[in-house]
Amino acid sequence: MTGHRFSTEVYAGRLAAAARAAADAGLAGLIITPGYDLRYLVGARAQTFERLTALVLPADGDPTIVLPRLELASLKESAVLELGVSVRDWVDGEDPYAMVAQALGGPDSGRLAVAVTDSMPALHLLPLAEVLGVVPVLATDVLRTLRMVKDPAEVDALRKAGEAIDRVHARVPELLVPGRTEADVAADIAEAIVAEGHSEVAFIIVGSGPHGADPHHECSDRVLQAGDIVVVDIGGPYEPGYNSDSTRTYSLGEPAPDIARRYAVLQRAQRAAVDSVRPGVTAEQVDAAARDVLAAEGLAEAFVHRTGHGIGLSVHEEPYIVAGNSLPLQEGMAFSVEPGIYFPGQWGARIEDIVIVTSDGALSVNNRPHDLVVVPVG
Amino acid sequence: MTGHRFSTEVYAGRLAAAARAAADAGLAGLIITPGYDLRYLVGARAQTFERLTALVLPADGDPTIVLPRLELASLKESAVLELGVSVRDWVDGEDPYAMVAQALGGPDSGRLAVAVTDSMPALHLLPLAEVLGVVPVLATDVLRTLRMVKDPAEVDALRKAGEAIDRVHARVPELLVPGRTEADVAADIAEAIVAEGHSEVAFIIVGSGPHGADPHHECSDRVLQAGDIVVVDIGGPYEPGYNSDSTRTYSLGEPAPDIARRYAVLQRAQRAAVDSVRPGVTAEQVDAAARDVLAAEGLAEAFVHRTGHGIGLSVHEEPYIVAGNSLPLQEGMAFSVEPGIYFPGQWGARIEDIVIVTSDGALSVNNRPHDLVVVPVG
Repeated sequence: MTGHRFSTEVYAGRLAAAARAAADAGLAGLIITPGYDLRYLVGARAQTFERLTALVLPADGDPTIVLPRLELASLKESAVLELGVSVRDWVDGEDPYAMVAQALGGPDSGRLAVAVTDSMPALHLLPLAEVLGVVPVLATDVLRTLRMVKDPAEVDALRKAGEAIDRVHARVPELLVPGRTEADVAADIAEAIVAEGHSEVAFIIVGSGPHGADPHHECSDRVLQAGDIVVVDIGGPYEPGYNSDSTRTYSLGEPAPDIARRYAVLQRAQRAAVDSVRPGVTAEQVDAAARDVLAAEGLAEAFVHRTGHGIGLSVHEEPYIVAGNSLPLQEGMAFSVEPGIYFPGQWGARIEDIVIVTSDGALSVNNRPHDLVVVPVG
Repeated sequence: MTGHRFSTEVYAGRLAAAARAAADAGLAGLIITPGYDLRYLVGARAQTFERLTALVLPADGDPTIVLPRLELASLKESAVLELGVSVRDWVDGEDPYAMVAQALGGPDSGRLAVAVTDSMPALHLLPLAEVLGVVPVLATDVLRTLRMVKDPAEVDALRKAGEAIDRVHARVPELLVPGRTEADVAADIAEAIVAEGHSEVAFIIVGSGPHGADPHHECSDRVLQAGDIVVVDIGGPYEPGYNSDSTRTYSLGEPAPDIARRYAVLQRAQRAAVDSVRPGVTAEQVDAAARDVLAAEGLAEAFVHRTGHGIGLSVHEEPYIVAGNSLPLQEGMAFSVEPGIYFPGQWGARIEDIVIVTSDGALSVNNRPHDLVVVPVG
């Protein structure tokens, strides 16, 4: 779990499930260039460059990886070799797109539709479409359920990431000292994120005072002052690459009564959304659970974004917890529950946990207190 | 030049030239999602996410940028607003692909072909292809010449980047101390790259002894020893984003006579390739100029990669200096000249400068001595 990738058996199961899903969808197969899908399927962290690397997964038949000879050594850190995936390396002057077509070609020439990974760049997609004589579809439709429903190894990885970011939040109050800038605080948080076991920093938001009212603010040279409300939204990948993402809101000194009152409504809204999570409930119902609590207290307009997003190898993935998403939740899905309230020019607040759907309801991987954290000031 | 982007006039000229090139190619227009092409055209550093951001540049008509409302604030750091590009923001639930189709639609409905940027992900390309009813082509064919031929502002940016990496190489000998690891040295080089003015580190290769024989080696825990030959290949972006990339080879103590002899051949090969550069000479002729010198001394087999790659906003771009590329060089093109010799299990060497094609020949932005740099040891 703390290693660079999961066991070979985990990837073997994923490859088999993906091939079955492709067959069920009537596809000839999947073509996966570097990105999260490739990492999910075979544990390879390859990056996309001008030279094509592609995993070809026929619906019937054995998988092949096509890659530049220069990249052969990189296969050792993935599960590709242990999985017995055929390796077709190529050198400048050869046509890797023709190799992909050949690797895809099975006995059943009637199924011509192929699906490609979301992140495949046009640079590779358009030549592939030409050599295959077909415009591919998105593999998301095939891989969505697999990627969304986390297996026990992934749940364990998300829990470890959640524990690590909780330890960082535990250290935040001592960093929030009036006179320091948001950027000072962010630099210390960056160190803490790595010190607590993440492999790197994915994002850090320190939004103080009026900056907290902008959900997309990152950090700035604004100097913290007594009386500030500060939104701290932080996370990063934890080996083997699953992300943490948690927000808590801090008050430098006791908050004004009106702030405390509105924060309490937000806290109830976040709780209501978490409590609504169980298999069969839809994503939009979870969103509504938070929104309804805020609306009942006149705060509907202050909540300007969706309630959450799925998380795993990528920080934002399906399922999105948003109005209009009628996807029923299933056991093993993992996503953020992060309602916020924003008062432009004044202050903002957000509370975010990553939760996993279990048969009993939501299991939260983040367990710091949800109250507005009051930091004593001089 | 040292700022975050060029003047608005620079981008206005690029947009006009790109629209003309699209018209000349018989295209209805270009669709550019975030990446180097977008940065080149309007100075925007946006990144691609699940929500579509796209610059639509009709061959006839005015450009439009389609982007999520949440990203509106990011336009301020680009030239988009000063250029008078129309802004079409969208919120969840709206169809951004239909907005792109509308922004593209001019009076000339006969020209249906559109081109998209290389890096556009399948996630956006496939829905666009559907709404447009046409499979796009790559915009590279339209933008290649524009991107390859650097204007004076870009040449100045590349020269500043080259001077900065030269200052780093000047500091390398004092870092190459027997007993230190490649990783120790790389960490110090990373600090020096930023200290000398780069905005970040793009790559660091420290290949000592047998590791120098692998052109794709980065760095390791191998401990430097007296007698090692060490390949140091480093670079990074310099505001407004143009990259440096330079290699020098170091010897810890006086090299053995056979090493010195073979290095001298490499040095002549690199010099011959640089000297061959002038407008009208082809990319493959420059590659051959280096290769012929090595072959004449029996070192053809030791030179296992192309002679160079274009450079600018990206570290690897056109023109590629490689056998088979009959592209004639033009004034303003910028690329690396970096032959190397590799002896597996023993040692390797490479010499790399970034050069710019002028009417007089090659202008090198790197000006450190090309000799094997002998570092005195104990």
